[in-house]
Amino acid sequence: MRVEERDMPRIVETTDAVIRVTATCICGSDLWPYRGAEPLSSTPQAMGHEYIGVVEQIGSDVENVKVGDFVVGSFVASDNTCEICAAGYQSRCVHNVMMGEIGTQAEFARIPLADGTLVATPGQPDPELIPSLMAASDVLGTGWYGAVAAEAGPGKIIAVVGDGAVGLSAVLAAKQLGSERIIMFSRHPERQALARAFGATDIVEGRGDEGAAKVKELTGGYGAHGTVEAVGTQESMWQAINTTRPGGYVGYVGVSHGVELDGLNLFFTSVHLHGGPAPVRHYLPELIDLIWDRKIDPGKVFDLTLPVEDAAEGYKAMDERRATKVLLTF
Amino acid sequence: MRVEERDMPRIVETTDAVIRVTATCICGSDLWPYRGAEPLSSTPQAMGHEYIGVVEQIGSDVENVKVGDFVVGSFVASDNTCEICAAGYQSRCVHNVMMGEIGTQAEFARIPLADGTLVATPGQPDPELIPSLMAASDVLGTGWYGAVAAEAGPGKIIAVVGDGAVGLSAVLAAKQLGSERIIMFSRHPERQALARAFGATDIVEGRGDEGAAKVKELTGGYGAHGTVEAVGTQESMWQAINTTRPGGYVGYVGVSHGVELDGLNLFFTSVHLHGGPAPVRHYLPELIDLIWDRKIDPGKVFDLTLPVEDAAEGYKAMDERRATKVLLTF
Repeated sequence: MRVEERDMPRIVETTDAVIRVTATCICGSDLWPYRGAEPLSSTPQAMGHEYIGVVEQIGSDVENVKVGDFVVGSFVASDNTCEICAAGYQSRCVHNVMMGEIGTQAEFARIPLADGTLVATPGQPDPELIPSLMAASDVLGTGWYGAVAAEAGPGKIIAVVGDGAVGLSAVLAAKQLGSERIIMFSRHPERQALARAFGATDIVEGRGDEGAAKVKELTGGYGAHGTVEAVGTQESMWQAINTTRPGGYVGYVGVSHGVELDGLNLFFTSVHLHGGPAPVRHYLPELIDLIWDRKIDPGKVFDLTLPVEDAAEGYKAMDERRATKVLLTF
Repeated sequence: MRVEERDMPRIVETTDAVIRVTATCICGSDLWPYRGAEPLSSTPQAMGHEYIGVVEQIGSDVENVKVGDFVVGSFVASDNTCEICAAGYQSRCVHNVMMGEIGTQAEFARIPLADGTLVATPGQPDPELIPSLMAASDVLGTGWYGAVAAEAGPGKIIAVVGDGAVGLSAVLAAKQLGSERIIMFSRHPERQALARAFGATDIVEGRGDEGAAKVKELTGGYGAHGTVEAVGTQESMWQAINTTRPGGYVGYVGVSHGVELDGLNLFFTSVHLHGGPAPVRHYLPELIDLIWDRKIDPGKVFDLTLPVEDAAEGYKAMDERRATKVLLTF
């Protein structure tokens, strides 16, 4: 992991924008290739897919944002007009571009499909809002989608597997969506404290079957109405499924690695299983408003801020779990 | 497979009823042990879990049905009062009893939790209603649940994988639930004809990836809004998932055999996956009304009726796919 000079991005398609990146960050999913859990390309690979910044340049067909706008975008560029986008699944837009292929851990970035991808904030943000707007670009939107997929809402007991930034954001989302009882799986005192600040009412330290059994015990033997899975391993997936009551909802947003679901076991759990790459764009306008109005403070998930020159140290800190989420500034 | 004399069932719990079975039938899932795809017990095993009949005897705590009532029950006995039942998942009731363990391919059957399990018809049915009421006990309710899980409804394009009695019932259900466009996968002319009679608008003969690609082609490249999976094999499950657009719904009701879902592949499909043993009890009152009022005729799935003495021939005919669904009478 190193920082180097690259060519200045430029407009390629008439629907592109180029933004000056104000802040970017390191995602749990950036750790998969870092750890060698995903095949590496043979050439240097630009990293990162989260970004906020100021529009520098727009293509001739861009209408929804203008030069100088402060914008938040999702980790997937989308046209926001196809039937899939219209149904709220912009992350699977028929014209989607994964921003990780572009690499937004950089001072400037080309944003394809700018009209469908970028959302301008109401004005230039106060510096104190930067971490929260940054969070909206991925982890908050992903946790939110997980909580929606878990059907969080009034009267619903929601459990969250994974105490990283996405899991913590899912706690915040479940609370905002109206759930009064939120159970967080965590063994880390600082993360437990942040989970409680975000709305968690119960902390369970057990994992796997033991953790799931504890949740059943806490919920009259039934299990949670919904569970957010925010890790992506075989153990965490089954922990989430087994934590959930029959007929309940599992929202899985951890990028699955080495997960195999046995069909017959899944059949008899009778849960709803829904997840995948979060359509963050769908939630961005609402999330930006909540942040702008100081109703939520998701930026608290960042516990380490580094200048981009020290990105390598940021990866190391997250890999070693010394940091939950690293903000990179310019 | 043979027919033999057994002891007369009797009331064991005060919540039991004993019914005289008017008709029973052979389920696709009865074929799994028949074909040796499930371990067999070392002793003779009673078979069957579908039943309609007349109440002969009730336990002292039974209040909702009385001796002489004509009743339809589900293949899972349920208390219909626990939180799981109240949420509509009677098949996963905390006190559930799988009726297959009792074996309802018999002249009489003990029904546990009679108050929560049995639904009385408005009166003694005309003989012509018997097949349809029989279908309600499992295949219709299972197809209905699959169609509900696939979110069938107005404006929704629904595909159905599996042209057995459950798949055909899912077509009927999707039509009743308001879907105008229903795509059936089938290679059998008779089943295609019945699917069309039940509401299918398109027939696709391709399977697997080829079949899924055909549905995408028929739906503007997007895929079905929802798909019912009514087989339970690896191929059929992925055919259903790949037939469905991102953000769409897969309702899987085929009992999974040898199905392994790769987590990462599933993650990037972004479908909702929901299924399991159908809570038929939840739908029974509505289904009985539709049948009683001659609004639906799901009994058409039976294409072979045999006296119970010839049950072995019924299994053989279904195993060899000479019959879609076999009704057994007394």
